[in-house]
Amino acid sequence: MTKSYNVAILGATGAVGTRLIEQLEQSTIPVNSLKLLASPRSAGKQLEFKGEKITVEATAPDSFDGVDLVLASGGGSVSAQYAPEAVKRGAVVVDNSSYWRMNDDVPLIVPEVNESALSSHNGIIANPNCSTIQMVVALAPIKQQFGLKRVIVSTYQAASGAGQSAWNELVAETTAYNAGEPVHANILPVKGAQHHYPLAYNLLPQIDVFEDDGYTHEEWKMIHETKKIMFGDKNSKAVKVTGTAVRVPVPIGHGETVYFETNDGAGATTASIQAALRSAAGVVLEDNPAEQLYPQPVNAAGKRETFVGRVRPDLENDDSFHMWVVSDNLLKGAAWNTVQIAERLVALNLVKVPEGASEKFPVTK
Amino acid sequence: MTKSYNVAILGATGAVGTRLIEQLEQSTIPVNSLKLLASPRSAGKQLEFKGEKITVEATAPDSFDGVDLVLASGGGSVSAQYAPEAVKRGAVVVDNSSYWRMNDDVPLIVPEVNESALSSHNGIIANPNCSTIQMVVALAPIKQQFGLKRVIVSTYQAASGAGQSAWNELVAETTAYNAGEPVHANILPVKGAQHHYPLAYNLLPQIDVFEDDGYTHEEWKMIHETKKIMFGDKNSKAVKVTGTAVRVPVPIGHGETVYFETNDGAGATTASIQAALRSAAGVVLEDNPAEQLYPQPVNAAGKRETFVGRVRPDLENDDSFHMWVVSDNLLKGAAWNTVQIAERLVALNLVKVPEGASEKFPVTK
Repeated sequence: MTKSYNVAILGATGAVGTRLIEQLEQSTIPVNSLKLLASPRSAGKQLEFKGEKITVEATAPDSFDGVDLVLASGGGSVSAQYAPEAVKRGAVVVDNSSYWRMNDDVPLIVPEVNESALSSHNGIIANPNCSTIQMVVALAPIKQQFGLKRVIVSTYQAASGAGQSAWNELVAETTAYNAGEPVHANILPVKGAQHHYPLAYNLLPQIDVFEDDGYTHEEWKMIHETKKIMFGDKNSKAVKVTGTAVRVPVPIGHGETVYFETNDGAGATTASIQAALRSAAGVVLEDNPAEQLYPQPVNAAGKRETFVGRVRPDLENDDSFHMWVVSDNLLKGAAWNTVQIAERLVALNLVKVPEGASEKFPVTK
Repeated sequence: MTKSYNVAILGATGAVGTRLIEQLEQSTIPVNSLKLLASPRSAGKQLEFKGEKITVEATAPDSFDGVDLVLASGGGSVSAQYAPEAVKRGAVVVDNSSYWRMNDDVPLIVPEVNESALSSHNGIIANPNCSTIQMVVALAPIKQQFGLKRVIVSTYQAASGAGQSAWNELVAETTAYNAGEPVHANILPVKGAQHHYPLAYNLLPQIDVFEDDGYTHEEWKMIHETKKIMFGDKNSKAVKVTGTAVRVPVPIGHGETVYFETNDGAGATTASIQAALRSAAGVVLEDNPAEQLYPQPVNAAGKRETFVGRVRPDLENDDSFHMWVVSDNLLKGAAWNTVQIAERLVALNLVKVPEGASEKFPVTK
């Protein structure tokens, strides 16, 4: 008999949460039972899973009794509080928040890139930031064949990366602009920040809060998560990573211009990089300038893959290239990567908390 | 008595043309008479200049008889044909098209950067590409103080850079999307191209046509124009310039992430670069992360300046920095820079075609 799993989705009602339900429905994971957990505000709401109505429950520590697998997307403070509660009760947590990503006891996983790091998990596995995931999916096959010395990325990030409310705000602002009515911004660039600015017909070079060094926390995440996923150390000196993150008036689908340097004399060419990308898991190469074929957010929305195009050599630096990467930030950038990690945990028979591991994540109040 | 000038605006009815009229109106140039020239399709239309109605005329070679100064924004083929006709008749042409920019006999001017190159003009002065202008305005004060070895730019370019019709298309598409109606694209990414794609809620990593090397012509322009303006040679090896140009769903105002390397050991710091930018002509430094102050297209639209923010050091490369640059692509990127060049020609008493110079630009049919 196939083993089946008691699954809980934490933060089930958000833009990512509803997609977690949908991706789980389409996954290979045998689901015995599904619990939908959210804030008390959303409790009582009904959502469908495989044709069955499930009532959303308010999250509490004992919500995780009897649960094998938690897919969490309720935000950093929710994961900080409840992931240890779940692990304590023997559930493995795949967490989409940023809270656990830099913890040395927590693997940060993109299955196409570093699935092997799953085997050493201690009950919590972190899902990386959306903008990081699509970039490392595209860079991994290149690194594998030609090495990787340096990355400079500029992001073009969709509103939904800041949640359903930011996405709604973009549409409402755009509608108001087009009707000649006043535009009100209450959410972007960052919920709870001192100032809010419209995204409609605008560009916001701030995603998440600012660090003391002038980088935003989003940029900080891209740097350190990329190093941890691709080089096994969040402060790895084996690669240089930097960039700028910008919010653009697009609902779904992050774009990224990625400049990268392969190892000196590794012999990378545009054709060999395209070949590596063409045969890479999770990548769709859309790269034919003569046919105006290149990735676009409107085409990537709703798909699980990472789309890559505009591959070309830097004209003045050897072994250096540029590319353009697009993916659905709510799917590969969040819900699909989370469910994909869970699929791999199931396939590798890793849905269990190792003895004593939960002590690494003490429950806090 | 102050000398006054007979001025013609070529391509007077487009998005840039109407702004040329407005910028000329607000300029210090003493205008004796103004002719508005356009295609036969627009002839007969009336536009206002300083409260007076002027009837648009269809352009013909003898339109330039008695004209001292032509501000041209009718596109490449119009400038190819009519700039030599104007110069032959003794008029100095400031041309906003790309047609003459790479000609060694034509200075390519951004007054804040290389005004001195005006003195050697032969009757035609070229206005650079919109995305180039704002970048070199921001880079020039940095280069002057600390040198400049390398630039990597990613652009976030507004629809109006492709003309009024592209701007209209963006608004029409967005309105249709919001109403749940089908979206039709007929103009972007490039007028007359094989395929057209919607820009509404989307990103198009193609601006202008593709070159054989995989770069777009827009990217090619940014590379070679930057070298010509800042280093006096369109193929200068003194600086490395590269980048990716992307169209974003914004009506007015290009954004640019700019990574740049100053000379080794030149001692540039974030503070010294900010100081250089703060005192630079044509630049407004908007750079205070603590106050969420940074350039945004909605704030730059309608202004002549180039706005710079997010200045910060690269964390892994010495003497290297990042910044975010925004400007109104129709003003500093086109109409204002054109009128500003004309203002400088007037101030320097250079509104005259040097003897014999017109032979450099033979009239073609």
